[in-house]
Amino acid sequence: CKIASLPGDGIGAEIVPEAIKALQAVGRKYGHEFVFTEALIGGAALDAVGVPLPEETLRLCRESDAVLLGAIGGPKWDNLPVHLRPEAGSLLPLRKELGLYANLRPVVLYDALIDASTLKKEVIQGTDILVIRELTGGLYFGEKKREQTPTGQIAVDTLVYTTEEITRIARLAFETARKRKKKLCSVDKANVLESSRLWRETVTELAREYPDVELTHMYVDNCAMQLVRWPKQFDVIVTENTFGDILTDQASMISGSLGMLASASIGGKVALYEPSHGSAPDIAGQKKANPIATILSAALMLRYSFNLEKEAQDIEKAIVRVLDKGYRTADIMQEGGILVNTEEMGDRI
Amino acid sequence: CKIASLPGDGIGAEIVPEAIKALQAVGRKYGHEFVFTEALIGGAALDAVGVPLPEETLRLCRESDAVLLGAIGGPKWDNLPVHLRPEAGSLLPLRKELGLYANLRPVVLYDALIDASTLKKEVIQGTDILVIRELTGGLYFGEKKREQTPTGQIAVDTLVYTTEEITRIARLAFETARKRKKKLCSVDKANVLESSRLWRETVTELAREYPDVELTHMYVDNCAMQLVRWPKQFDVIVTENTFGDILTDQASMISGSLGMLASASIGGKVALYEPSHGSAPDIAGQKKANPIATILSAALMLRYSFNLEKEAQDIEKAIVRVLDKGYRTADIMQEGGILVNTEEMGDRI
Ligand SMILES: CC(C)[C@H](C(=O)O)[C@@H](O)C(=O)O
Ligand SMILES: CC(C)[C@H](C(=O)O)[C@@H](O)C(=O)O
Repeated sequence: CKIASLPGDGIGAEIVPEAIKALQAVGRKYGHEFVFTEALIGGAALDAVGVPLPEETLRLCRESDAVLLGAIGGPKWDNLPVHLRPEAGSLLPLRKELGLYANLRPVVLYDALIDASTLKKEVIQGTDILVIRELTGGLYFGEKKREQTPTGQIAVDTLVYTTEEITRIARLAFETARKRKKKLCSVDKANVLESSRLWRETVTELAREYPDVELTHMYVDNCAMQLVRWPKQFDVIVTENTFGDILTDQASMISGSLGMLASASIGGKVALYEPSHGSAPDIAGQKKANPIATILSAALMLRYSFNLEKEAQDIEKAIVRVLDKGYRTADIMQEGGILVNTEEMGDRI
Repeated sequence: CKIASLPGDGIGAEIVPEAIKALQAVGRKYGHEFVFTEALIGGAALDAVGVPLPEETLRLCRESDAVLLGAIGGPKWDNLPVHLRPEAGSLLPLRKELGLYANLRPVVLYDALIDASTLKKEVIQGTDILVIRELTGGLYFGEKKREQTPTGQIAVDTLVYTTEEITRIARLAFETARKRKKKLCSVDKANVLESSRLWRETVTELAREYPDVELTHMYVDNCAMQLVRWPKQFDVIVTENTFGDILTDQASMISGSLGMLASASIGGKVALYEPSHGSAPDIAGQKKANPIATILSAALMLRYSFNLEKEAQDIEKAIVRVLDKGYRTADIMQEGGILVNTEEMGDRI
């Protein structure tokens, strides 16, 4: 299996190697050969070759069987115009170019981390949510404009969705819900947004094909509240790009830390796996980062790209064991925990 | 003082009278005369006179000294086109017409309700956040479009901000922060949105006039997470319309219930006071609704519109006492609490 490895910026260079280690361990145990080719992306690419997403990197991704990404962006590049910034200039076009319209973010709670969450035990215990975020539409990809006015400036972003885009992601959500608890919650702001109304109509229409799945609709503001109030009410959540971005980061706190939240971006020929967190410039280079989200993303790669379910579970079980033994990176440190750095955590797993 | 009272839909008709009672009690005690005139709005107006915001209602609001609003919308009107829907057809134009560009939502925790929150005590104790949401710009008011395509439909919403709009709300935020702990967090998505970049630039520029206020910037996804992780880090938060909608509903869980979250919409000649929650059609007519958010909004009215600080505090203290005595509506019910209905809660306060 050919894997493109794109560490990117900030803690990316520290966490990606740990996920590679995990994949190599699985490879050794089961006799699979994973070949990793590293390439530049994001601010690192911008600094080295002048563009955040070099042609070469894109080509490598296209020719690989899967992509493992670290994180992108940092304050160093904060003053560039949006299209040149590492995030908007590399991560977004990469998702678009590879056709990755669906971002899957499982929000799972490890028993060992129940106390690490800021939410009460009885509220989070047993939570098992899969958030499916639309990834190549909405405000992220609509037309952007900046113009001078007589008295200042005006800036415009455009939120666009088509029936096809909504149907595509909704179908995936229904299919996924069917394999789980058969409960799908579609999140929108249909009381205000036209795009949300089309979203709701389209999802409702499609629901006829899935009479076995219980569909509910929820406004995004209410959903943000319900995720803190009673997360167990959710099984699969499907939502548009921006809402999904906000809700998943928020939901990560159920798992104790954003450092625990894996993600798989699928829909094209080659899928992309990355932690849900960012480049954490404040702790970059200090070996403090939690590699688990990235290692879990590697497990998702085994599951979705290579159909290696048992191997994926091996990694997931290893994480459970290491957490049960008390090993903790700083973000999930608790009383009685054994503090380890990024590398030690990876080694243990 | 002339107050327009707009109960609206759902639980609106149950909670507004409780806030009126509180204002009348204050009036009796201090010798102020509050005159209430009721008018139709939202679905109730749509059903009665065919439009969600009758001219008459708008005129009444303009001629009053303050507006007290209940809640708007419900599933009954869910299938209407967006501009005819109660929310988009009445609440939004009302905010716009009255020039209410700033929505203030205090997130305060009552000691008696610490256990009602799903967040851990040590995480929320001492939280005192004021979220300032921009209320007349952004996706809510940008151009909307729906068009037929050869293969389906396309729906568009537009997110627009001008330097002036941002400066106006940011100035209010700096001024407010100055009177509090002098910490302002501006929330945007400047790594992706052009409007957010203008937002960040404009706020940063204005910060020069407020060297005594500590300004930080945070991405909205991160902020949604930080509000669950460690809310005490925040003093004043300022953000655009949609982000503010999501973040405040979410933050309400710090107070134990959305039923505790008041709001004041200011910026025009006449200010509007309403609970942050919606019309809760599921419990409408059952006397279960928590009137505290509305009563607290009435206290904000005394403070901001009538400059009656002592009177406002009287109401706030009454709420503390009633909660301390154990009285609870269903949404904040706890072990050992005394369950009361909407009216009893209002009477007690
Ligand atoms: C870095 C940023 C562009 C990105 C996004 O918003 O999609 C990130 O927050 C994420 O969630 O993957
Ligand atoms: C009802 C709806 C239009 C409204 C909004 O989103 O502004 C509500 O959620 C609020 O927060 O006041």
